[in-house]
Amino acid sequence: MSDRFELDPRLAADTFLVDETPLSQVLLMNDARYPWLILVPRRGDIREPFELSEADQAQLWQESMRLGEAMKAHFAADKLNIAALGNQVAQLHVHHIARFHTDDAWPGPVWGIRSAVPYSDTALDALIDDLRSLLQQPLSLRGGTKA
Amino acid sequence: MSDRFELDPRLAADTFLVDETPLSQVLLMNDARYPWLILVPRRGDIREPFELSEADQAQLWQESMRLGEAMKAHFAADKLNIAALGNQVAQLHVHHIARFHTDDAWPGPVWGIRSAVPYSDTALDALIDDLRSLLQQPLSLRGGTKA
Repeated sequence: MSDRFELDPRLAADTFLVDETPLSQVLLMNDARYPWLILVPRRGDIREPFELSEADQAQLWQESMRLGEAMKAHFAADKLNIAALGNQVAQLHVHHIARFHTDDAWPGPVWGIRSAVPYSDTALDALIDDLRSLLQQPLSLRGGTKA
Repeated sequence: MSDRFELDPRLAADTFLVDETPLSQVLLMNDARYPWLILVPRRGDIREPFELSEADQAQLWQESMRLGEAMKAHFAADKLNIAALGNQVAQLHVHHIARFHTDDAWPGPVWGIRSAVPYSDTALDALIDDLRSLLQQPLSLRGGTKA
């Protein structure tokens, strides 16, 4: 067991690093069908959220709630899906997926539904800029308190 | 919008009430293929976890973490899956599913994989007794602090 954080290579291959929160890396899934962000706590060898310290658990879910709320508003999504599954990649990672009644998998979950549609370079650059701004806003993961 | 809590009839039809935590109902999904518990906060008209008050959000995830940890240990599961999806039933509910390398959907998510296998009456009674004991234990959702 190592305490050093290293992103799982399969997660690294499927995503782009958007930002870092106090606890986590924020990754964008390379699938243009859904706005899909993943929080990965920068802790070594953690597979389940309850394996984190109590303080880290609280931080993770606070970051998750703020990210989910920001995503739902920003993308005007019909629903947010939040999930820690980890059956294929064991390293703890929490999915946040903005869902739409018209999307490719609705109303099912997104996993295993046809193939990912990679972003074009232009779309990717614009989206990452956009997400970085979103994550810097007062009610974002950087801190601030909810009214 | 009503502030009164009423369990969605589709959730009620698919589950059995096992217990109540300070915030939530604990429901058992009627599918013998997986130990599968659902937390439903007793709050009216909430669809996303971040729509709860900050205090309820913290309580929900604390209950979720304790439930997940207790389930993983009790069932000697290979992995816990935790998810708030709500695409089909909008009322906020958080799935906790004990997964095994040999189960019917591994390594995929459980949703939409063939049909549920209902519990026999005998198996159901035994499991619910078992779960109620589990939820009464010191490190359970009733309170107590983690070592």
